[in-house]
Amino acid sequence: MRTQVTIGLPQFAASDSPAANADKAESLVRQAAAQGAQIVCLQELCTTRYFCQSEDPANFDLTERIPGRATDRFSALAKELAAVIILPLFEKRALGVYHNTAVVIDADGSLLGKYRKMHIPEDPGFHEKFYFSPGDLGYQAWETAFGTIGVLICWDQWFPEAARLTAMRGADILFYPTAIGWLPEDEHSIGPAQHQAWQTVQRGHAVANGCYVAVVNRIGREGDTLFWGRSFVANPYGEILTEASTTEEGVAIAQCDLNLMKEFRRIWPFFRDRRTDSFAGLQERWGS
Amino acid sequence: MRTQVTIGLPQFAASDSPAANADKAESLVRQAAAQGAQIVCLQELCTTRYFCQSEDPANFDLTERIPGRATDRFSALAKELAAVIILPLFEKRALGVYHNTAVVIDADGSLLGKYRKMHIPEDPGFHEKFYFSPGDLGYQAWETAFGTIGVLICWDQWFPEAARLTAMRGADILFYPTAIGWLPEDEHSIGPAQHQAWQTVQRGHAVANGCYVAVVNRIGREGDTLFWGRSFVANPYGEILTEASTTEEGVAIAQCDLNLMKEFRRIWPFFRDRRTDSFAGLQERWGS
Repeated sequence: MRTQVTIGLPQFAASDSPAANADKAESLVRQAAAQGAQIVCLQELCTTRYFCQSEDPANFDLTERIPGRATDRFSALAKELAAVIILPLFEKRALGVYHNTAVVIDADGSLLGKYRKMHIPEDPGFHEKFYFSPGDLGYQAWETAFGTIGVLICWDQWFPEAARLTAMRGADILFYPTAIGWLPEDEHSIGPAQHQAWQTVQRGHAVANGCYVAVVNRIGREGDTLFWGRSFVANPYGEILTEASTTEEGVAIAQCDLNLMKEFRRIWPFFRDRRTDSFAGLQERWGS
Repeated sequence: MRTQVTIGLPQFAASDSPAANADKAESLVRQAAAQGAQIVCLQELCTTRYFCQSEDPANFDLTERIPGRATDRFSALAKELAAVIILPLFEKRALGVYHNTAVVIDADGSLLGKYRKMHIPEDPGFHEKFYFSPGDLGYQAWETAFGTIGVLICWDQWFPEAARLTAMRGADILFYPTAIGWLPEDEHSIGPAQHQAWQTVQRGHAVANGCYVAVVNRIGREGDTLFWGRSFVANPYGEILTEASTTEEGVAIAQCDLNLMKEFRRIWPFFRDRRTDSFAGLQERWGS
């Protein structure tokens, strides 16, 4: 059984041109592979700007079919590089049914499956409930050439339930393609606290589930949002193995040692002790 | 509605004498109140050593009835100081039925209720499944004179489900009386990672639920375990407001601003968006 896996997280600023974004994504995936990455996770909606800042039906033209042009391209790339690629796309399922999706492509180029974002935000600057139907494929894990992985997307990262259910499917690494940032006026006030909260809750998922967490975020200013980058990987202790900058394009690389999970879960066997008989209330909206 | 509340967390080393431990606990509660604490949470099993290092039926003599001697004493103290006290005890419910329990005493001295530890560990040095029946009162919140609070105990702290369910009952502050430490040989090897994991997962609960988390741990060496202290309070962003030392007895004090929760939950309305329809699997032991 494989115990070491190297993962690569390319982060970049998106432009208005999907073709240019796909080119940049490909170039950074090649760079990641050249640095030894065996699993590369691209950022949320990696072929487009973060168009959810306003509600504009014209943006539905940015969708991709799955399988389709983008998966064809990155599937060929995965095969060429013998690397697993996680490819987040704006999915067109049908006219009027769109999802925020990530496709998992194995190292031989085959499409292993896809995850459709389950938790959809709707807040000023993040009008996702307009664009995306809530995911209906549930929480999944895939046995890839380089390890068993799960994918969750952005807003999902705040929900321990999603991390737990994905880990319970057997995922050793949870990947979170993400698009999160500050309003420029918040960067030096509430911004650092927001960033820390975002990082902390995901490091917490790593601890609670005794697994690795890998988060990839975009950079650059789009409209009123300054995306804060800081892609990172945390081990089961929540320790940060690599962290990218707030403003620089590039690839964060980390080596994950799955032996550490074995040690961790033997010393702290949380899954043995979950009081599953007491968790029915989690299916409620609120406790009253 | 009250928006500011000061909490106090006394941490101390326990001796073999329950009477001496109760005296020390009382003295530190008085010290906390003198420093302005309105809610004081004592450490797990606050009248005893951490006797779970071995399995010895004689330790059942350390139990307390609830209500009983200890609750009488601390209820009078709560009334005298006009402070809420959380009093963790080794509860005797019946011959052969014992719990690891925390009693919530309101500022007028009345017993509001009790929480019985739901998640019971069983590991070398922590033989709790021998001593404690699993809690059967579920996750609760109490409206005290100084805010709506919930209590969870030690091993519970690793389970996001427990934090979530307590927050969903309306608790604005989650209290975690705790007894956790290192083996002396681990203190400078895996120890710091274990401590960080412990702190991180609980800061994560604060973020995921947009609430305060207050953790009180004992200090001192008992048998092979060096309890690591470091009682702390985190705000909804997971920021640490106060943190006690690894080795010193004393009281950690923090002021909690409930307005911050209002801000946090308006900007990040996680509870609105939980995919409760997809959480049935949380009642399973594992995903396969």
